[in-house]
Amino acid sequence: MESFKPQSEIYEARVRKSFTKQNMMATIGTSLAEVRPGFCEIRKPFSDCLSQQHGFFHGGALASILDFAGGYAAYTLFVETDTVPTVEFKLNLLAPADGQLVIVQGEVVRLGRTLTVTRGEAIVVKGRIKKTCAMMQQTMMRISGRAEFTE
Amino acid sequence: MESFKPQSEIYEARVRKSFTKQNMMATIGTSLAEVRPGFCEIRKPFSDCLSQQHGFFHGGALASILDFAGGYAAYTLFVETDTVPTVEFKLNLLAPADGQLVIVQGEVVRLGRTLTVTRGEAIVVKGRIKKTCAMMQQTMMRISGRAEFTE
Amino acid sequence: MESFKPQSEIYEARVRKSFTKQNMMATIGTSLAEVRPGFCEIRKPFSDCLSQQHGFFHGGALASILDFAGGYAAYTLFVETDTVPTVEFKLNLLAPADGQLVIVQGEVVRLGRTLTVTRGEAIVVKGRIKKTCAMMQQTMMRISGRAEFTE
Amino acid sequence: MESFKPQSEIYEARVRKSFTKQNMMATIGTSLAEVRPGFCEIRKPFSDCLSQQHGFFHGGALASILDFAGGYAAYTLFVETDTVPTVEFKLNLLAPADGQLVIVQGEVVRLGRTLTVTRGEAIVVKGRIKKTCAMMQQTMMRISGRAEFTE
Repeated sequence: MESFKPQSEIYEARVRKSFTKQNMMATIGTSLAEVRPGFCEIRKPFSDCLSQQHGFFHGGALASILDFAGGYAAYTLFVETDTVPTVEFKLNLLAPADGQLVIVQGEVVRLGRTLTVTRGEAIVVKGRIKKTCAMMQQTMMRISGRAEFTE
Repeated sequence: MESFKPQSEIYEARVRKSFTKQNMMATIGTSLAEVRPGFCEIRKPFSDCLSQQHGFFHGGALASILDFAGGYAAYTLFVETDTVPTVEFKLNLLAPADGQLVIVQGEVVRLGRTLTVTRGEAIVVKGRIKKTCAMMQQTMMRISGRAEFTE
Repeated sequence: MESFKPQSEIYEARVRKSFTKQNMMATIGTSLAEVRPGFCEIRKPFSDCLSQQHGFFHGGALASILDFAGGYAAYTLFVETDTVPTVEFKLNLLAPADGQLVIVQGEVVRLGRTLTVTRGEAIVVKGRIKKTCAMMQQTMMRISGRAEFTE
Repeated sequence: MESFKPQSEIYEARVRKSFTKQNMMATIGTSLAEVRPGFCEIRKPFSDCLSQQHGFFHGGALASILDFAGGYAAYTLFVETDTVPTVEFKLNLLAPADGQLVIVQGEVVRLGRTLTVTRGEAIVVKGRIKKTCAMMQQTMMRISGRAEFTE
């Protein structure tokens, strides 16, 4: 993985502040773990409210968290006035997300002026065993100097 | 679109019963609208708990609902003992989901013995205006005679 | 499908001229059939040089043609000085491409200032039977006033 | 990356033999470089016949080669009578493929009884500089004991 330099020293504080405004992430009970330049990790303990019919984490919930993890990985490299809407993502579900905790990591693969591409992985933890249960490839857009979500 | 025949007369009851067990869909406040062979529509009124930072429906929430809509579209054509895990999906976010209601539709494009491919669309309604805000392409797997989520 | 208006009256001539410069399309033996605002159809008769091991059209060749069809569908709506690189696409192979001819259609789903989203379909023709064998979802970028392929 | 064990000692010979039957790969001038359990590398020198309008490798050609690289990465882990059709793939084009050589690598991320997921990368070489120009996520199917391409 390439090593990236943030444009601002307070990139982590900025990401953490933005994360607290994400009602969706609060609703589903996630927390922001690690934030580094071009990288973001979100954690989510298992809870009944997001389970699917077999009692596992639901794939759609994983999709949401992966989307956020990739977006914040990109946002670490932007300036405060940039907006970072998701253009698209693609998700493969590799195994049932059966465990006590899901660790979701997003990392920037290519940083562009307009488009940034990230890769994401969801790892389910059951006792001592870790298993990759989902894999994402995502495109983010950077919109400078506007505070709107629009392409 | 091809026209599909359900294998069971009670396909709709079966889909509706399964939907009530989806905690994730209850958590985010969706309801199952239309169910036809190879087609499923889910509706979700706007609520603060799922909004992203600009007050729109969050893309990740749309992803979850689209994933369900495609999955249930496929499930209308299966038998009760079939399990239908998502293999993968790809989502394009086309416009901000700014409105009072999101209508999410999934339809089967190709029905296969093992793999079924669906297409999904999310339409945001703001006053009298409807706008497609997300588009999905999805692969579902059919697992016969087992009640597990596993590939 | 939305109806689109081209920005130039000579959009078709422009698309046809550009197509003749695509060595890849000549190499694999395609021809440009229909061009309409927001729509493009490319045809390819079967030939041994592109077959895969079972004698069908190869999926990768379909991917190439679908990518072009979506790109030219977008290009019908742009001006001559715009460049239209592919950002990404996702392809589902639905059935073996077994036949004498493949008809590949691309259409614009959403036209944006920066990003345009298209949908594509490949239909294989065997005798009198037509069958959808591949389905694509694609994102194109518009770069104004530069003649480079770069994001 | 997980470490994988091939089911047969002659996995490499089997992959190399199959590759020689791929007319598409011969048409576009590729060669099979490295083959390891769960991994495959294909190389392609630049040639005019596959260039797009700006003289770079065409994205569709990269898609074809990435599709093959992922497929053969999976095939290293299967038995001779298995058939490995592509279910779907998603490709991001990250940079113009401007150079003398493209190195395309596919690797298995998850090996399943029915479905196998791979990741692919295309690296363009220009003089001494290597640059990732495309990234793929792919799903392959395993069909045991049949010699057909069909799902």
